[in-house]
Amino acid sequence: MPQRPSLLLFDVFGTVVDWRSSLIRQIPGQLAAHGVIADPAVIADRWRQLYQPSMQAIRSGARPWVPLDDLHRESLDVVLTDLGCEALPADARDALNRVWHRLDGWADAAPGLRELRRFGYCCALSNGNLRMMAAIARHAGLSWDQILGAEWSKAYKPTPRVYLDATAAFAVEPASTIMVAAHNSDLDAARALGFQTAFVRRPTEHGPDQTTDLDPTTLPDYVADDLVDLANELGRVHG
Amino acid sequence: MPQRPSLLLFDVFGTVVDWRSSLIRQIPGQLAAHGVIADPAVIADRWRQLYQPSMQAIRSGARPWVPLDDLHRESLDVVLTDLGCEALPADARDALNRVWHRLDGWADAAPGLRELRRFGYCCALSNGNLRMMAAIARHAGLSWDQILGAEWSKAYKPTPRVYLDATAAFAVEPASTIMVAAHNSDLDAARALGFQTAFVRRPTEHGPDQTTDLDPTTLPDYVADDLVDLANELGRVHG
Repeated sequence: MPQRPSLLLFDVFGTVVDWRSSLIRQIPGQLAAHGVIADPAVIADRWRQLYQPSMQAIRSGARPWVPLDDLHRESLDVVLTDLGCEALPADARDALNRVWHRLDGWADAAPGLRELRRFGYCCALSNGNLRMMAAIARHAGLSWDQILGAEWSKAYKPTPRVYLDATAAFAVEPASTIMVAAHNSDLDAARALGFQTAFVRRPTEHGPDQTTDLDPTTLPDYVADDLVDLANELGRVHG
Repeated sequence: MPQRPSLLLFDVFGTVVDWRSSLIRQIPGQLAAHGVIADPAVIADRWRQLYQPSMQAIRSGARPWVPLDDLHRESLDVVLTDLGCEALPADARDALNRVWHRLDGWADAAPGLRELRRFGYCCALSNGNLRMMAAIARHAGLSWDQILGAEWSKAYKPTPRVYLDATAAFAVEPASTIMVAAHNSDLDAARALGFQTAFVRRPTEHGPDQTTDLDPTTLPDYVADDLVDLANELGRVHG
C-alpha cells in the first residue's frame, strides 16, 4: 500500500481544467469584434500543438525562463499567420491570449479538490505562470494551498527541479507526495524521482477523437475517473 | 483618491495572526512533557526579540537565505539557554518550533480576508517561509490567492525585491497595489517603492503594554481597526 500522502501536486491543463472547450467557447467572441473568421477548434488545437515545442528552448537551457503567458503570445502569432488571420491587431491578440486565464474546471474539479485537501496540502504544479494560475483558480473555484510549478522554479516540467522544489518547500519526501495528472509523461517524470502517481482519465481533453493518454502506460499508484473519484479512492485506502 | 487596487499584499505576523497569544497558549504544553518550567510570555517575547536580528545577516548578504523556520530554531536555542532551560531535548525543541505553524488569526482575519478578495488578489507577503505560511493559512482559515514573500524572493523584508517580485509576478504596478501591515517600517519600505499603504491597528500584538506601532507615523492611504474595517473602507472609497 502506498504511504499516506502529506502533499498532493496537480497538473492543471487537462487534468483540472478543460482548456480546449474553454478556448473554443471564448475565441469566437474575441475574433468577431475585428471581423476575423476562423474555426475556433483549429485555433485551439494549433495553439496547443506549439505548447511543448515553445518550452523546449527553455528546458534545454538555450533560452532563459519566461512565463507561459509570453510563450502563448508568441505561439499565437504563428497560429494566426498560418491561418491567414494577420488582420487581428496586437491589442486584440493580447486580449485573446488572456482566454488562457479563464479556463473552466472539469465539473468535478472544485468539489474534488475540496475533498482532497483532507489528505494533505494541495498545490498546482503546472507549467502555467502564477498570474495565469491565480486567475484560473478564481475563475474555476480552485482552492490551492499554493501555486507551485514553472514560475516557482523558473523551469518547465518535466525538468526534475520543478517536482523537487515542491517537496523541498514543504519538507516532505517524494514518497509521501502524489503527483496527479492526466498525462503519462508527467507521471513518468515524477515516478522517476520517487513520487507516488495518480492517473486521472480525461478522455476528451483533446476533443472527441482523442487517441493519447486514454490509459496509464505504467501502473500508477492510483487510477481515477475524476478528482472526486480520486478522493474516494484515497479514502478507501487511507480512511 | 488612491487608484482602485488590483493586488493586496499582507504582512502576516501581528497584522493577520496573533502570534504572541498563540505562542503563550501553546508553549506550556510543549514544556510540561519534559518537566521544564518557564514563563511562556517571557519565552515568546525573547524569541520574537531575536526575530529582526536573525534576519540581518541575510539582508546584508553575509549569509545565504534560509527559511524562517531555521532562524526560529536557532533563536530558540539562544532563548532556552538564557532562561536556563537547557534540559529540553532537541526533538522537543523541534516540536516547540512548530508552534509558529499554528498561529491563530485575529477574530476579523478570516472574514475580513474573504471580503477583501473582491478588491483584488490577496497574497501573504510575510517573512515566514512557505511551509509555515501554508500551515498557518489552514489553521486560521486564511484564503490566500498565493503565498509570496520571503521564500518566493529568497530575501527578507524590507529588502525591496520582496515587494517588487510580487507586483512583477502579477504584472501590476505598485501604485495599484496595497501593502497592508500593522507596522510602520513595513509600510515605509513599500511606500518608498510606490505602493499604496494600509495601516491596521493591532495595539495588543505585543501584549497589554505595547508602546510601538500604535498609530501610523506617515499618513497611509488607509487606516483601519481590523481587516473587516479595511474592507468596509475600501468599499466606501471604491464601491
